[in-house]
Amino acid sequence: MLKKIPKVLSPQLVKALMEMGHGDEIVLGDANFPGCSLSTNVIRADGLSGAVLLKAILELFPLDTYSEHSVFLMEVTPGDDYKPDIWEEYKEILSASGEPFSIGYLERFAFYDRAKTSFAVIASGEEALYANIILKKGVVR
Amino acid sequence: MLKKIPKVLSPQLVKALMEMGHGDEIVLGDANFPGCSLSTNVIRADGLSGAVLLKAILELFPLDTYSEHSVFLMEVTPGDDYKPDIWEEYKEILSASGEPFSIGYLERFAFYDRAKTSFAVIASGEEALYANIILKKGVVR
Amino acid sequence: MLKKIPKVLSPQLVKALMEMGHGDEIVLGDANFPGCSLSTNVIRADGLSGAVLLKAILELFPLDTYSEHSVFLMEVTPGDDYKPDIWEEYKEILSASGEPFSIGYLERFAFYDRAKTSFAVIASGEEALYANIILKKGVVR
Amino acid sequence: MLKKIPKVLSPQLVKALMEMGHGDEIVLGDANFPGCSLSTNVIRADGLSGAVLLKAILELFPLDTYSEHSVFLMEVTPGDDYKPDIWEEYKEILSASGEPFSIGYLERFAFYDRAKTSFAVIASGEEALYANIILKKGVVR
Amino acid sequence: MLKKIPKVLSPQLVKALMEMGHGDEIVLGDANFPGCSLSTNVIRADGLSGAVLLKAILELFPLDTYSEHSVFLMEVTPGDDYKPDIWEEYKEILSASGEPFSIGYLERFAFYDRAKTSFAVIASGEEALYANIILKKGVVR
Amino acid sequence: MLKKIPKVLSPQLVKALMEMGHGDEIVLGDANFPGCSLSTNVIRADGLSGAVLLKAILELFPLDTYSEHSVFLMEVTPGDDYKPDIWEEYKEILSASGEPFSIGYLERFAFYDRAKTSFAVIASGEEALYANIILKKGVVR
Amino acid sequence: MLKKIPKVLSPQLVKALMEMGHGDEIVLGDANFPGCSLSTNVIRADGLSGAVLLKAILELFPLDTYSEHSVFLMEVTPGDDYKPDIWEEYKEILSASGEPFSIGYLERFAFYDRAKTSFAVIASGEEALYANIILKKGVVR
Amino acid sequence: MLKKIPKVLSPQLVKALMEMGHGDEIVLGDANFPGCSLSTNVIRADGLSGAVLLKAILELFPLDTYSEHSVFLMEVTPGDDYKPDIWEEYKEILSASGEPFSIGYLERFAFYDRAKTSFAVIASGEEALYANIILKKGVVR
Amino acid sequence: MLKKIPKVLSPQLVKALMEMGHGDEIVLGDANFPGCSLSTNVIRADGLSGAVLLKAILELFPLDTYSEHSVFLMEVTPGDDYKPDIWEEYKEILSASGEPFSIGYLERFAFYDRAKTSFAVIASGEEALYANIILKKGVVR
Amino acid sequence: MLKKIPKVLSPQLVKALMEMGHGDEIVLGDANFPGCSLSTNVIRADGLSGAVLLKAILELFPLDTYSEHSVFLMEVTPGDDYKPDIWEEYKEILSASGEPFSIGYLERFAFYDRAKTSFAVIASGEEALYANIILKKGVVR
Repeated sequence: MLKKIPKVLSPQLVKALMEMGHGDEIVLGDANFPGCSLSTNVIRADGLSGAVLLKAILELFPLDTYSEHSVFLMEVTPGDDYKPDIWEEYKEILSASGEPFSIGYLERFAFYDRAKTSFAVIASGEEALYANIILKKGVVR
Repeated sequence: MLKKIPKVLSPQLVKALMEMGHGDEIVLGDANFPGCSLSTNVIRADGLSGAVLLKAILELFPLDTYSEHSVFLMEVTPGDDYKPDIWEEYKEILSASGEPFSIGYLERFAFYDRAKTSFAVIASGEEALYANIILKKGVVR
Repeated sequence: MLKKIPKVLSPQLVKALMEMGHGDEIVLGDANFPGCSLSTNVIRADGLSGAVLLKAILELFPLDTYSEHSVFLMEVTPGDDYKPDIWEEYKEILSASGEPFSIGYLERFAFYDRAKTSFAVIASGEEALYANIILKKGVVR
Repeated sequence: MLKKIPKVLSPQLVKALMEMGHGDEIVLGDANFPGCSLSTNVIRADGLSGAVLLKAILELFPLDTYSEHSVFLMEVTPGDDYKPDIWEEYKEILSASGEPFSIGYLERFAFYDRAKTSFAVIASGEEALYANIILKKGVVR
Repeated sequence: MLKKIPKVLSPQLVKALMEMGHGDEIVLGDANFPGCSLSTNVIRADGLSGAVLLKAILELFPLDTYSEHSVFLMEVTPGDDYKPDIWEEYKEILSASGEPFSIGYLERFAFYDRAKTSFAVIASGEEALYANIILKKGVVR
Repeated sequence: MLKKIPKVLSPQLVKALMEMGHGDEIVLGDANFPGCSLSTNVIRADGLSGAVLLKAILELFPLDTYSEHSVFLMEVTPGDDYKPDIWEEYKEILSASGEPFSIGYLERFAFYDRAKTSFAVIASGEEALYANIILKKGVVR
Repeated sequence: MLKKIPKVLSPQLVKALMEMGHGDEIVLGDANFPGCSLSTNVIRADGLSGAVLLKAILELFPLDTYSEHSVFLMEVTPGDDYKPDIWEEYKEILSASGEPFSIGYLERFAFYDRAKTSFAVIASGEEALYANIILKKGVVR
Repeated sequence: MLKKIPKVLSPQLVKALMEMGHGDEIVLGDANFPGCSLSTNVIRADGLSGAVLLKAILELFPLDTYSEHSVFLMEVTPGDDYKPDIWEEYKEILSASGEPFSIGYLERFAFYDRAKTSFAVIASGEEALYANIILKKGVVR
Repeated sequence: MLKKIPKVLSPQLVKALMEMGHGDEIVLGDANFPGCSLSTNVIRADGLSGAVLLKAILELFPLDTYSEHSVFLMEVTPGDDYKPDIWEEYKEILSASGEPFSIGYLERFAFYDRAKTSFAVIASGEEALYANIILKKGVVR
Repeated sequence: MLKKIPKVLSPQLVKALMEMGHGDEIVLGDANFPGCSLSTNVIRADGLSGAVLLKAILELFPLDTYSEHSVFLMEVTPGDDYKPDIWEEYKEILSASGEPFSIGYLERFAFYDRAKTSFAVIASGEEALYANIILKKGVVR
């Protein structure tokens, strides 16, 4: 633990967030997300909810302002009768962070493809479905 | 050994099953399966039969419900006069697991190609021919 | 995630618990514990409390019955006016697990020395002081 | 699988048996044996019994004739009311192998110390207690 | 050395032969064969002739019966006035092994391409020219 | 770069500071310090002064309150007519940090011995002599 | 530190500059540059300005004279109302170095593509925007 | 040092020359050659001239007789007014070696492409320009 | 294969012989020698006799003249009724090499201890007993 | 090659010289020196004389002024009738460097022991006997 740095973030995760540059993306995957087969840089965060992690990350992490969307969510698969209530929670955390943001929505396999080129995937313990979220890093001025 | 976890499963295999996410596939290869040339993530289980392993894995492993097939078997090569009795044994274990499933059949080299993109290949000691089986991971709700 | 396995446990941690044998010890360190300098096998569990981890581990983990103590706590340093309330919580979890146990108490640096020969150290996010605990593995019969 | 080589032996295990020379020792540990903390060369054989492995190994492995004992068993800990019936099974397999042998008995921690200097430890799935056995390699003439 | 296993085979080579599955191919390269640039899995056997190695390998190794050819030789380059007498020696060893076989002939660079997808290349000490041979693994029933 | 984290600190250094626990020590070595031969965990910070690094580290890093000294400086070697003015600068930064501290002084080779057991050594670009300083981590309450 | 070699350059950076040959390019990235996702050879120089590093590098590094441009800057993104004053500073340092040079300008993503084939990326602490610069190595005669 | 082996050749270089087979190529790069970005197998020979190395290599190395050219030189770039006198020196060494040879000339970037598929690149200290030379290995009969 | 270098020597072995310096020792172990447990630098030479290897090594290798013995053999264990005829063969090869030599004899476990500090162990295929031999490298003048 | 840095020094050697700190020692070993068995950090410089390397190193390297000796030579072994003329050459180079120095003489095995704790060993091609020299790094003021 250090002063100022949110305590739920692991050393490996903070290191990754620091190494990321303008335009790099990080995936906050839920507990069903196939992170290990999409990325060679998986950072475990078992047992932690998506909201807790998102809030902690946004204390440190600037969102991109140079691209159309700085945040991406995974669309519910057609035919899957599920309402991702967690999205509202995510949006409140994003709004509270003070960072400007615009959300894009990606179909499941398009989301997977985007994850393949991400900087890292966080393997959270979030049990809600469709709780995966991508954050695009902005510039620190 | 731990409580609750089937004793025939190696630590490396349980770790792989845990790391797999929604849609990832694992190959349970028989003793003639060319796993090492198809995958860089081969998990040895020499001396153990396909049935013993399949039953133990399904105590922990949810099958996918979002795709057409969650289980794949390798078709008998045309001209090979062989009847894979083990398939019936596999189907009974699948049924007994309580997991919903639907079996797809793949020609030998199509099966190999699918194995190349799998999460891992288990090198079992199953001596029956055409005893290879692929399992697709589902969501834990 | 898998069926039956507590969801807060990471794949690496379950693998370690499985690889441990009779008499091996694992340290559940609190967020101030110097795990990285005492062990080369540190398993991160940032953000998770000691109680949540202890409860999950004991669902799988048998305690030793061949030695005087199967559990160790770190004594409060003389002069440090601190009462580790978490010990009562730990004891309730131990009792509820159904595993027989006997607790030994170790002075701070004796605890560190014991950690050096442990199988692994879990770096939890537990913020309470003196919340470190060592578990000695028993036999699965 | 190959012709002539017992099918339950993994490639890694056969390689180790081949690399061993005169006087080297291998530990066949039971499912509670703390192999990973005693050796950096652990060969997994989860799910396989001690008898199956011992029989297969002795098809290939010569026992030492230059030392007092070529086989070691772990003594029952004083106070542990357990009769290791598996020893009789082991002795029958040893006799049937045609290799000359003489058994030494080691107290639990003396056995662990000997394991530390062994060539490798096999982590078998043998669930019987006190089922650990050490084999000392002889000369192939 | 072990009982039953031909003594000229190295531990690494036997391990590779065991790991190979149905349809995998191994190249027995002569002393001029560019194995290191064609394969990342080169197994040294300096000083040993092709015949000695082939004979030893075939004591353990089943040849494939599902494909047109289970053995391949490298054709003499047009214009090279050389008669590879070693082929007759190889054919006698193949016949004596009792394994069914059918030989295909590959032009030099087609042979190299096939070697690139092989399981392993043995770097033998065979000084005869055009003494390279590929073996395709069959099923052990 | 991230918000809140001092910009001169490298990702590797922040990771190390986070991984350190109660009582672990980090050496901030000057540009002549033989860090690579004293530690296997050297973190480069070429070109940066000791004062800039010390100030940034103390924004995050708590000092120990359980030991006699939480800070160590290297004594001037007898016979070396040098006055380390940088010590005053260091003391001002330590005072300004708000962390309680007490400085111990170590003879050159005693300082080297202490560095050998440190968590990490920072290889700074500080050109002043005797500018090495050790910080002992405290508890975050 | 050594005599003659600029003190702000790390050992790893000097090694890279020495290993580079005619036509190889190195990227001096600013503190927002996504170096880790564009190159596997990132050299940290946190806390150091672009000007300090450029000046030090050019004491050792010859610029290419065989290609149209030996230096590249990243164009300001259309719509971004920012004037990179640092370019003038860079040009003065280039001129003062005595090396002949010609600057090419690359659109942001073309610059990223070029960085992907570079020899290495320096992760500087330069906080100015559009402060990234590529240097192409010339011949030492 | 050993008897019979030219003393200027490093152990790593002799090992590479031995591992090369019929048709493999090695690049003897001059001190400006960008070997590290063209090959993952660079063998340092700083401070040694091209002539000294070529002479020593040819004491051991047979040149290919099955291809049009067994030696390649890099053409002078059009517009570069430079006469590579070292070519004459190289030709004398080649002639003196007794090996038959035929030289091909490659444009600078074609030479780089050929280097990318070479077995290894020697990073010599030869300061002359256009002093790079490729050798193609022949058969030892 | 290269010109001048004996063909039975592997590239790895020649590299080791070259890297050895004055006073370094190499063990030529027979097929029962426990090389892997005595050395981390084992060089396989399965299938090759001790005489063939010794003769080839001595074409390149100078023996030490600064110590009492430059060659060591393993004494026959008291009670072992075996006459190592191979020693005469070794002595003839040593004499024929032209190198001065003096042989020391070591008891079995003293020989093992010496092997532990050797530069490398060659795992030959020599089936004769007591066929192990240590060579001490001399100076090349 | 870079400007200012002596061309005979390899990138790895310059990196090592830069990483060394006050009091660290580097061994410049002659071609018979057993560097690989004394150090895990051997830097090859085959084919280069001791004088050429010493002169180049001293262009960059400061010698220690805090210890009795900053340079060490290996004494001629009693009974070895050899006069190391190279020592005079070394002394001239040391004097010409402008660095203050004082030479200590070490018996052969004391020299080896000192090499074991050195930062690195350079494996030069110097063929003269007793041409080994140790340099102790000083402070750059």
